[in-house]
Amino acid sequence: MVKIIIDTQGSDRGAATIIRGAGAALRKFSDLSAELVGDIEEMKKTAEEIDLPADRVEFLHAPTSITNFDDPAEAIFKKTDSSMLRGLGELSRRDDVSGMLSAGNTGVLLAGTVRYLLCADRTRPAMAALLPAADGSFTCLVDAGATIDCTPQMLCHFAHLGTDTMRRMYSIESPRVGLLSNGAEPTKGNKLVKETHVKLAEDPDINFIGNVEGNTALSGVCDVLVCDGFAGNQVLKVTEGTAARIMRDIIKYAHTHNGGEAISALAAELMGRYDIASLGGGIILGAAKPVIKLRGSSGEDAVVNTAEMIINLSRGRTVYDKE
Amino acid sequence: MVKIIIDTQGSDRGAATIIRGAGAALRKFSDLSAELVGDIEEMKKTAEEIDLPADRVEFLHAPTSITNFDDPAEAIFKKTDSSMLRGLGELSRRDDVSGMLSAGNTGVLLAGTVRYLLCADRTRPAMAALLPAADGSFTCLVDAGATIDCTPQMLCHFAHLGTDTMRRMYSIESPRVGLLSNGAEPTKGNKLVKETHVKLAEDPDINFIGNVEGNTALSGVCDVLVCDGFAGNQVLKVTEGTAARIMRDIIKYAHTHNGGEAISALAAELMGRYDIASLGGGIILGAAKPVIKLRGSSGEDAVVNTAEMIINLSRGRTVYDKE
Repeated sequence: MVKIIIDTQGSDRGAATIIRGAGAALRKFSDLSAELVGDIEEMKKTAEEIDLPADRVEFLHAPTSITNFDDPAEAIFKKTDSSMLRGLGELSRRDDVSGMLSAGNTGVLLAGTVRYLLCADRTRPAMAALLPAADGSFTCLVDAGATIDCTPQMLCHFAHLGTDTMRRMYSIESPRVGLLSNGAEPTKGNKLVKETHVKLAEDPDINFIGNVEGNTALSGVCDVLVCDGFAGNQVLKVTEGTAARIMRDIIKYAHTHNGGEAISALAAELMGRYDIASLGGGIILGAAKPVIKLRGSSGEDAVVNTAEMIINLSRGRTVYDKE
Repeated sequence: MVKIIIDTQGSDRGAATIIRGAGAALRKFSDLSAELVGDIEEMKKTAEEIDLPADRVEFLHAPTSITNFDDPAEAIFKKTDSSMLRGLGELSRRDDVSGMLSAGNTGVLLAGTVRYLLCADRTRPAMAALLPAADGSFTCLVDAGATIDCTPQMLCHFAHLGTDTMRRMYSIESPRVGLLSNGAEPTKGNKLVKETHVKLAEDPDINFIGNVEGNTALSGVCDVLVCDGFAGNQVLKVTEGTAARIMRDIIKYAHTHNGGEAISALAAELMGRYDIASLGGGIILGAAKPVIKLRGSSGEDAVVNTAEMIINLSRGRTVYDKE
C-alpha cells in the first residue's frame, strides 16, 4: 500500500477538483491510500458527494491556504498551519507516507521542500517534468524551472537526479542523458553548456549522448534532457504555446471547411495528447521523498497521473544518493 | 528598382533551387533586380531553362564554395574568391545593391558581414527571425542564434535593432518590445534578463511592454521579442519541433480514420503555415546593409519571401544609428 498526501488547497479550480481527482486515483489504484489536507468541512462534504472509499482516506484539518501572493521565504515560517506546509511536515515526519501532491504556489512548495525534506547533501532540489516523447516514451526534462541561474555542477547533479528517476519510474537500466544546446556538436552551446558538456562526458555514471537541439528534444532521442531552469521553462512553454496555437487553427478550420466532424474528432485526440496540463506536473527531485507540483489549472486527470508517478517512484529508492 | 545579391552556392538543395527561387522573385516583384553570384556555367544553364528576365539579372562568376566545414575566422581571409565573400564584398562596395541572400554557412556569413559591412559603432551584428504571430502579424525574434552568450548591453542593442526593423518593414510607429523570460513579473528571469529588464524599462526610445513568457511569445503580444541567442535558438527549434511532430500525428491519423481526405487537406494548410523553413531566414541586423541567411534546406518560396524582406528593408534607413 502506498500512501500519499494530497494538498486540497491552492488549485485554481477549487478543492473539489483535487478531491474528485483523489477519488478517481483511489478507484484506479487499489494499492493507493490518501491523506487529504485542507478544510475539513469542505473535504468531507465533497468526499460524501463522490463516495470516497472510507478505508483508504484520512483527513487532516488545515484550513489556512497558501496563495500565489505569498512570499516563499516568509510563508514557510509564518504559515506553518497551511495545508501545504502541514502536508510537507507530515511527509517529512512520518514513515507511512511516500510522497505529496500540491497545486499551490510553486515557490512556497520548493522552499517548503527545502525546509522539511532536504537531503543531507543540501543540494538545491530540481524540478523535473515528464514529457511524452514522439515515440511513446517519456523524457524527463530537468530542470523545468526551479533553478533559473545554474552552474555546471548543478546541471551535472540534474543529470544524476534525472537518471535515477527514469531508472526507477520506467525501469530503464541506463537512461540516455542529453544536454540541451543550440547545436549537436560538442563545441556548440553557451558558456554553461560547454562547461557542462565536458563534465558530463567524463562522468562514468552518466550515459551521456551529447548535445540535443530543441527540435529533437522531445522526439525520444534521450530519456533525460538536462538544462538550466530558464531554458527548461522555454522548452515547456514554447511547446505548450505552439500546440495550443495549432489546436486553435484546427478548430477554426473545422468550422469553415468540409469534413468538420472528422477534424473535430482529430482535434479532440490531439488535445488529449498535447494538453500538458493533464500530464501531471513538476516532480521536485533531490528531496527525501517525492513532492509533485500540479499546475494550478490541473483537472482531475492530473491528480490521477501524478498519483501514479508517486506510486512508481516509491517502488525504488526515493532519492539519488551521492556516493 | 531594388537590386539584391543572391549567393547561389551553399544550398543543401543545390544552386538550381536558389536560381529558380530568384526567377520566381523577379516574376513576382517587378521593381526587383538580382545579381547572381556563383559558377557562371551553372547559373546560365539554369537561367536559360527557366527563362530569367535578362534585363533584370546579372551574373558574377565565383566558382569557389564555402562549405559547412569551413572555419569562419579562417574562411573570411582565405576564401575571398568564394561566392559568399565575393557577394559581401560587392554589397559593401557598391551603392546600387541593397542587400544579399545566402543559404550558406551561417558562421562564415556572420563573420564575413562583420568584416565587410560592420557599422561604425562596431557592435556585433544580431540575427533576427521574423515569425508569423497567431494574429496574422509578424514578431521579430532577436537574437535568433548569432550571439549565444550575451550581456544586458547586447540585449538592449537587439531591442533597438528589432524596433528599427519592424518600424521600417511594417510601418509600425512604436513597435512593442517584449523580453523573453520565465514569468511575466519584472522580478522573473535569469540574471541577464533581470538586468536587461531594468535597462529596457528606462530606455525612452524603446516601447517596452515587459517580460513575455514562451507560451505567448508568438501570439502577437509584442512586435519584437528580445532574448540571447541560446534562448532564441530554443524558441525557434522547439516551435519547429512541436509543429513537425503534430503534423506527423495528423498525417498518421488521416491514414487510419474516417474523413482522411478532409484531414489531409487540413494538414496541407497547416504545413504551409508552420513550415518555418519556407518563411525565409535570419536577417543579420546591425550591418550597413541587410544580409539574410536562408536555411540550408530552403526551397524557392524562401528566396521569394526573403527577397521581399530586403525590398521592404531598403525602403527606409538600413541600419539603426546610435545617437
